[in-house]
Amino acid sequence: MRIIIDAMGGDNAPQAPVEAGCKASNELDVDIVFVGKEEILVKELNKYSYNKERVSIVNAEDVITNHEEPAKAVRSKKNSSIVVAANMLKNNEGDALLSMGNTGALLASGLLIVGRIKGVLRPALATLLPSAKGPKMLIDAGANTNCKSENLVQFAIMGSIYMKNVMGIASPTVGLMSNGEEEGKGDELTKETFPHLKNAPINFIGNIEGRDVMEGTADVVTCDGFVGNVILKTVEGMGSVVGNMVKDMFTKNISSKIGALFVMKSINAFKQSMDYREYGGAPLLGTKKPIIKGHGSSDAKAVYSAIKQAKKFVETNIIDEIIKNVSNMEEKSND
Amino acid sequence: MRIIIDAMGGDNAPQAPVEAGCKASNELDVDIVFVGKEEILVKELNKYSYNKERVSIVNAEDVITNHEEPAKAVRSKKNSSIVVAANMLKNNEGDALLSMGNTGALLASGLLIVGRIKGVLRPALATLLPSAKGPKMLIDAGANTNCKSENLVQFAIMGSIYMKNVMGIASPTVGLMSNGEEEGKGDELTKETFPHLKNAPINFIGNIEGRDVMEGTADVVTCDGFVGNVILKTVEGMGSVVGNMVKDMFTKNISSKIGALFVMKSINAFKQSMDYREYGGAPLLGTKKPIIKGHGSSDAKAVYSAIKQAKKFVETNIIDEIIKNVSNMEEKSND
Repeated sequence: MRIIIDAMGGDNAPQAPVEAGCKASNELDVDIVFVGKEEILVKELNKYSYNKERVSIVNAEDVITNHEEPAKAVRSKKNSSIVVAANMLKNNEGDALLSMGNTGALLASGLLIVGRIKGVLRPALATLLPSAKGPKMLIDAGANTNCKSENLVQFAIMGSIYMKNVMGIASPTVGLMSNGEEEGKGDELTKETFPHLKNAPINFIGNIEGRDVMEGTADVVTCDGFVGNVILKTVEGMGSVVGNMVKDMFTKNISSKIGALFVMKSINAFKQSMDYREYGGAPLLGTKKPIIKGHGSSDAKAVYSAIKQAKKFVETNIIDEIIKNVSNMEEKSND
Repeated sequence: MRIIIDAMGGDNAPQAPVEAGCKASNELDVDIVFVGKEEILVKELNKYSYNKERVSIVNAEDVITNHEEPAKAVRSKKNSSIVVAANMLKNNEGDALLSMGNTGALLASGLLIVGRIKGVLRPALATLLPSAKGPKMLIDAGANTNCKSENLVQFAIMGSIYMKNVMGIASPTVGLMSNGEEEGKGDELTKETFPHLKNAPINFIGNIEGRDVMEGTADVVTCDGFVGNVILKTVEGMGSVVGNMVKDMFTKNISSKIGALFVMKSINAFKQSMDYREYGGAPLLGTKKPIIKGHGSSDAKAVYSAIKQAKKFVETNIIDEIIKNVSNMEEKSND
């Protein structure tokens, strides 16, 4: 198996992707292709031990930054690391693609270069969020701002397949994000979607509310990408603010620093349970081949988790199962 | 000044509202009218010291529970505490109304009985949320599931007036909740709303994202009630889950319990900064007279904060200022 890594994307590129990829080449029984400026990558590679038979570099002169308009950048920057990597994936020069770079550009590359699975109206970004009951999936977490009910139903199906295969949950529960639990609650989109989810080949448990995200009420939370983006960023923002507050709590004065020594183990367990790095990246579900978006601020540890996740994405039969489950849904024009 | 309290609403009724109202009668220079089952309230009142010249009871035989369909219940249960209280407010038998009961029933009573300010298309529920920079307002937090851009503009104006008068912020900043900071980002509603907010008599700072809620980027966060409800409940759910985790952290074993002793002061400061009870309730903005929704789980301390808040709502000229600012906006049919 060969994993293509956009080595230029993310706040800690190229260090984090290269360090993690080298480690993976030694430990994970995968080949790694780094895509990016060769000169820079050769220099970076020299810092780490890696399996020389399993690591290669493909040169890409350009980089799409976070400030560029995604679709336009993908169309114009043919030699950017993301575009080169996506073309390699399309041409079967690798089995999965991982990038920590511009989210929109990765989505556009998935859609325009790698392509949708036949029958999938819109691929969706699926994020794993920490909860009181372990990691749960939020889909769509931001790929599709405006959605129709058919989209949400497909998100729910694809999310269920992923959680079953990658997280090992036999029959993942699916909740529809709404502003009330009762069936009649919701906006136009969720009210229209509810009966379709009831009839879909999933374990639908009905409407859920914002508090259910962290409580872990459903294994898969489905919503449009606008709401999903707001939830994801609200949770991230709160995590960061509360994290700082807890840190302040233990560094305020001598007394609290002594206190910290006694609860160090608990603090670390708490931090770990809230650590997005444990869960890898966000898979893009609905494209013909596996694509994973790593968090922009990923360090080497987070990239390594995402590589393991990409491997599992390839090994399990997620894409085949998505093909099987959506092929019986009539494809409709949805632009 | 006379504050009408629905003494039957909320998880801790009648104890919490009665205890808080009694304290307010002694300390706040306000008259308190408790509305509810007289027999029960007389018994509860006997448990506390209160100012006999300032406290009275108005009998209401019925209660609208949290499980009833709000608009229907308000229409059919004429003798429920919320409906009796709303009619008293309408008939100038009090200056403000506070309820910890069924949110939908309170909103319906505000709309159907107390009535909208002329020119206000839709009253909105405005919640104060904790942030890294102190309490910030989320409006609409759930009163209006489907909104138009005119609604959001009015929410922003009313929210700004409230934050100026009650929180003492000279020129409150307003952010439009979206899925990206750039002007072009958003769904149909936010894209349409953006230019109108630019021209509104407010301190508009543009689009904001979910993470800005907790970071406190804007004093007023405006959005439709569906998104607002999702944000509010996501934050509440996360607060409760993280709170339990922090608690577990300090009660796990002997070592962590000793540690807790050293950081007790910091823990309490942390809890206080995250404590909704400090901020009172959620004002309903846009009705002819002040209405405040206290949190359903309010204890006496939270109800007392909400009474102080109701007093400030009456004392400052919020309603006059809303009348002045929306009277020059043409009233449009909006149902």
